[in-house]
Amino acid sequence: MGATWGEHIKLTIFGESHGSAIGVVLDGLPPGAALDMDEILREMARRAPGGAEYATLRKESDIPQILSGVLHGRTTGAPLCAMLQNKDVRSGDYQTALLRPGHADMTAYYKYKGFADTRGGGHFSGRLTATLCFAGAVAKQLLLPRGIIAAARIASIAGIDDAPAPPGNLPQIARKPFPTADDAAGEAMRKAIMDAKAEGDSVGGIVEGVLLGVPPGWGNPFFGSCESMISSFLFSVPAVHGVEFGAGFSMAAMRGSEANDPLRLENGVITPQSNHAGGLGGGITNGMPILVRAAFRPTPTIGKSQQTVDIEKMENAEIKSGGRHDSCIVPRAVPVVEAVLALCALELLGGDKNWEE
Amino acid sequence: MGATWGEHIKLTIFGESHGSAIGVVLDGLPPGAALDMDEILREMARRAPGGAEYATLRKESDIPQILSGVLHGRTTGAPLCAMLQNKDVRSGDYQTALLRPGHADMTAYYKYKGFADTRGGGHFSGRLTATLCFAGAVAKQLLLPRGIIAAARIASIAGIDDAPAPPGNLPQIARKPFPTADDAAGEAMRKAIMDAKAEGDSVGGIVEGVLLGVPPGWGNPFFGSCESMISSFLFSVPAVHGVEFGAGFSMAAMRGSEANDPLRLENGVITPQSNHAGGLGGGITNGMPILVRAAFRPTPTIGKSQQTVDIEKMENAEIKSGGRHDSCIVPRAVPVVEAVLALCALELLGGDKNWEE
Amino acid sequence: MGATWGEHIKLTIFGESHGSAIGVVLDGLPPGAALDMDEILREMARRAPGGAEYATLRKESDIPQILSGVLHGRTTGAPLCAMLQNKDVRSGDYQTALLRPGHADMTAYYKYKGFADTRGGGHFSGRLTATLCFAGAVAKQLLLPRGIIAAARIASIAGIDDAPAPPGNLPQIARKPFPTADDAAGEAMRKAIMDAKAEGDSVGGIVEGVLLGVPPGWGNPFFGSCESMISSFLFSVPAVHGVEFGAGFSMAAMRGSEANDPLRLENGVITPQSNHAGGLGGGITNGMPILVRAAFRPTPTIGKSQQTVDIEKMENAEIKSGGRHDSCIVPRAVPVVEAVLALCALELLGGDKNWEE
Amino acid sequence: MGATWGEHIKLTIFGESHGSAIGVVLDGLPPGAALDMDEILREMARRAPGGAEYATLRKESDIPQILSGVLHGRTTGAPLCAMLQNKDVRSGDYQTALLRPGHADMTAYYKYKGFADTRGGGHFSGRLTATLCFAGAVAKQLLLPRGIIAAARIASIAGIDDAPAPPGNLPQIARKPFPTADDAAGEAMRKAIMDAKAEGDSVGGIVEGVLLGVPPGWGNPFFGSCESMISSFLFSVPAVHGVEFGAGFSMAAMRGSEANDPLRLENGVITPQSNHAGGLGGGITNGMPILVRAAFRPTPTIGKSQQTVDIEKMENAEIKSGGRHDSCIVPRAVPVVEAVLALCALELLGGDKNWEE
Repeated sequence: MGATWGEHIKLTIFGESHGSAIGVVLDGLPPGAALDMDEILREMARRAPGGAEYATLRKESDIPQILSGVLHGRTTGAPLCAMLQNKDVRSGDYQTALLRPGHADMTAYYKYKGFADTRGGGHFSGRLTATLCFAGAVAKQLLLPRGIIAAARIASIAGIDDAPAPPGNLPQIARKPFPTADDAAGEAMRKAIMDAKAEGDSVGGIVEGVLLGVPPGWGNPFFGSCESMISSFLFSVPAVHGVEFGAGFSMAAMRGSEANDPLRLENGVITPQSNHAGGLGGGITNGMPILVRAAFRPTPTIGKSQQTVDIEKMENAEIKSGGRHDSCIVPRAVPVVEAVLALCALELLGGDKNWEE
Repeated sequence: MGATWGEHIKLTIFGESHGSAIGVVLDGLPPGAALDMDEILREMARRAPGGAEYATLRKESDIPQILSGVLHGRTTGAPLCAMLQNKDVRSGDYQTALLRPGHADMTAYYKYKGFADTRGGGHFSGRLTATLCFAGAVAKQLLLPRGIIAAARIASIAGIDDAPAPPGNLPQIARKPFPTADDAAGEAMRKAIMDAKAEGDSVGGIVEGVLLGVPPGWGNPFFGSCESMISSFLFSVPAVHGVEFGAGFSMAAMRGSEANDPLRLENGVITPQSNHAGGLGGGITNGMPILVRAAFRPTPTIGKSQQTVDIEKMENAEIKSGGRHDSCIVPRAVPVVEAVLALCALELLGGDKNWEE
Repeated sequence: MGATWGEHIKLTIFGESHGSAIGVVLDGLPPGAALDMDEILREMARRAPGGAEYATLRKESDIPQILSGVLHGRTTGAPLCAMLQNKDVRSGDYQTALLRPGHADMTAYYKYKGFADTRGGGHFSGRLTATLCFAGAVAKQLLLPRGIIAAARIASIAGIDDAPAPPGNLPQIARKPFPTADDAAGEAMRKAIMDAKAEGDSVGGIVEGVLLGVPPGWGNPFFGSCESMISSFLFSVPAVHGVEFGAGFSMAAMRGSEANDPLRLENGVITPQSNHAGGLGGGITNGMPILVRAAFRPTPTIGKSQQTVDIEKMENAEIKSGGRHDSCIVPRAVPVVEAVLALCALELLGGDKNWEE
Repeated sequence: MGATWGEHIKLTIFGESHGSAIGVVLDGLPPGAALDMDEILREMARRAPGGAEYATLRKESDIPQILSGVLHGRTTGAPLCAMLQNKDVRSGDYQTALLRPGHADMTAYYKYKGFADTRGGGHFSGRLTATLCFAGAVAKQLLLPRGIIAAARIASIAGIDDAPAPPGNLPQIARKPFPTADDAAGEAMRKAIMDAKAEGDSVGGIVEGVLLGVPPGWGNPFFGSCESMISSFLFSVPAVHGVEFGAGFSMAAMRGSEANDPLRLENGVITPQSNHAGGLGGGITNGMPILVRAAFRPTPTIGKSQQTVDIEKMENAEIKSGGRHDSCIVPRAVPVVEAVLALCALELLGGDKNWEE
């Protein structure tokens, strides 16, 4: 099973790409929180397809219907269920006998013994991330009055890197239509996407996310570490193949004297003088921005011919996808990474026990 | 909290570096499995300190006492508790008023409000990984008759990379005293460690691990993905700052036509023709070796002077560590990564439901 | 939080009595199971209101819409979400300022700080048990080919007891419109309900449930005991105030020589010669019928005037309910108890590990 | 599995009656709490064998060794492990080939396929409840400064009932050597125990427990209800066959007008005027004492000859126990029920989120 996440808030997702609806149940929300539905829709629009020339042509209203947990615009404290109906479904595009390389078709075939609904990726579809964006948008609204902000940007696409940017700038960068710090780098990335698309191919990239405003002392040692929680959630997002915190993989080549963040008192607060650790130590927050980077593989659906297997005839075959798809999902992944971080922050907030007598 | 891991097997760890003992409880083991204690001790010796000139001088017998769950050399099915007493403790080495940069001292101070036992890292100490190695050694013995093997090697230290090696070679490489495929690379790594040590500094590196023999169809979509489980566990290991599967971060710069693993029938079995995906699709195993790489930061304890804060006097201070420590923990991390993978495989095995009527 | 149940199957419920819909997500179902929707509807009709003169007059189609997890009439293995729309809603009946004694209005007021949707009981409404009946009906269909049957009967209403009946008769008794072994006792119970109704009052009772066909060796010691799992689920059903297994509370007055079930070999199988233990020992099944009894309090909504508090004016007040309600919910609770038992059996089945090498 | 309990605190137990040690790991405790070890020992002595003529003659020091999580007499916030060595072990008393009726021998045989350590009940032994008493004693010390008290008494033994007593009197009654409100009733119970003992037989009884001082608004609807949590824990205690809250099973024969607790304002606080609900509504606390009763079966080990099966010879046999045992475990169960309630209250406290901005 894999549909439920969280301990202090609990998130349950359901749905298949070409079924009748997808949705999410959020349990453990505080009661009385005002939800701004317009803001939720704006957040979801950032992930929605059809926003750019390189995105899938599938258009969906993606207007979530809230079935429970909200009364007079405020959370009731009971489970909040939001449903998104699948309206623009063209199942005929999908020949489910041909396993699509790079997709979950093959592994779903083994696990579900041929009974999975694999049309458009079925339950494994990136479309399910719309439910995460909904939940993330709710989480963001709960975090904002507490001074906690989740933001992300495109750090790299097709090997083209964005310029470095201080974490504090990410909320502003994230609002751009193509969220890079350096617009020229963004332009080069867009060109790389269009070039790949023209060749019937696709490209991958890296999303950098940040949590700002998290106080020190949240999280836990070992299996309850913030890194464990965040990485676990990020690796549940389709297409993610790598996750690193702070200086990440580059720390493996550093010396200790370089990697350690020196500590100084600043206005009475113990303050790291650099942030190679990514805001975390021993799994627990240190008050610095929490920095994470997630590597996304290139979209597996491509127009080029690929070797595959026909599971009805059980013979080798070729596949050349004609369905709607993105040539690069990285821009649409930016709000998904933000949603993951916001939900993790809400989980940490919910788990922050008030043990005072 | 963070002491308990797993759903189908359950692992609970306890202990502090300079307390009276550390230990682990393993629940959910199958009954009747013969445990080879000599083999368990050999596995634990791979992680034990004192094995090499660059390792900490702290010597511990690290002989686990099994308190429950084993009768006549076989698992009973009841919780197995193993305890390791802390014998060689020199707490005087630790001035706990000075936060050690790069360690969890600062975050533990915030979370536990000054009550944590931070001598030698306390509960956050790498010494706790001895409990993982014990549990991993048990897991390996349960997996072996099922044809599943966890193995790891040093992929990089101080920026020096090992040569590429096929996953199938890792079990053999892992048995070397300094487990690299290329002995010359290993020699260069050792020299880099000794050079850093001579300067009172430390280095980091990357461990590559593999799970061989896992059948296709294990794991789950989304929050129950193999990547979520394995990354979550790896990030609970102290010093890990990055985790990637298969081609990992390098996939972000690939094109889809390059990244997708083509599929062919081989002897009636659907077989990927490459393994960029690292043995996984949609969170589920595909029968190929599961490949993972974990980046370890350099040992934070160094002989050089560092800026820090004295939390008793609440003033800025300098720290220069005199305690025993490794200049590079990567070689000792190899069996820890193997243990994590073996425990994850056992969890997957336990979760492999037999739904047949 | 309290919306999610189970480890090997996972059940998540949502909804409020007077919201737009209620529903359930079932994760971890085996793929490929054929679902008989007519049978599901028949099961749900057993709990539906409007079936008898003593039941609430609220009429609802209670036709579940399956949003995901089913394709061509078979489970896909992905989460199955079923939604029931709330159509026949007369919220005007409810003056939410007056806390209804015996209901969750008061405790919800404290927990949710006045933001809960308490119309008709809101999330605490017995209407939510329709989602359990749906899930239970699915579970029953998965259990039937494995020879496992959940059945229940009315054991007592208003102090009038049904005649003793062997557990094996319960599946047949359960199918009666008023499921008692002794029709005369059933007639007396019905009269007691109508008498209470005539006086604007209500009555409670006891439901006896049984699980037949569960093999020996399922369940776990201590916190994973079958009793722990089943009681925990039963006490989540609104109005349940007591749960006992086998001879239950009457065992407290027995002697050991009387309470112990003697063991004999029957056709090579170790067979208890009585079933005071209710099919369980040390939390684990012994192959005998699992016997459980749940005590239901009388319906709290009554026509008589009661003392209460007006939370808008914060003053003492009187309440006399005019809303639709049952004078006794015990008959409608019978399929709910069956659903709980069927879901518990499915959880046990899912947790029955196949450790064979 | 069944060794781990709790979400906001986490309890893991291990050990077998005749193994080398039993123990418990408590994770999630607040840091800095002073633990009074003398008080812990006093609490554990209440459950320890050898305290009365009707108790088992097995004597154990039952001095817990704290292996981790405590420094300078205060909790560190890291997992607290306490171990109790098994010193007074006479395994020769146990002929494990003969299944003891009423014990878990038979079900353990099925579940663990003959590999369980069943000497003295093994992991299923009531001795494991010593770990609960240790954990409960810790919990009580954490609850006391918050005004929360867990207390219990003997409500019935061998069909002899104690006199009614207001919940507020239980802390005082609980301190008696034989904790009944009515000493004459207690004397009659003791005589009944000795009579049974003289005949080589045993008796059961009922323990009544109470949680005082729990504020309103704790707990959750449905699967997270207080009743679910408490009953689940109580049914994990060996020998418990029934659990009821407030008026419990007797509510099944009440009318609604009688069962409903009227509400009045008292000093501005909404106050139930009776407590049939046992301090709970919709799974959530209402500020009244939480009242629970647990039925314990008579000790299964008796001196009389009983029918059983010899699993080595696989033939019918007789058994007549010669091992040490209690003729009634109810007096020793009193502190166990208190421990369960204290741990549940600590879990509720840990789960009481501070959502304030």
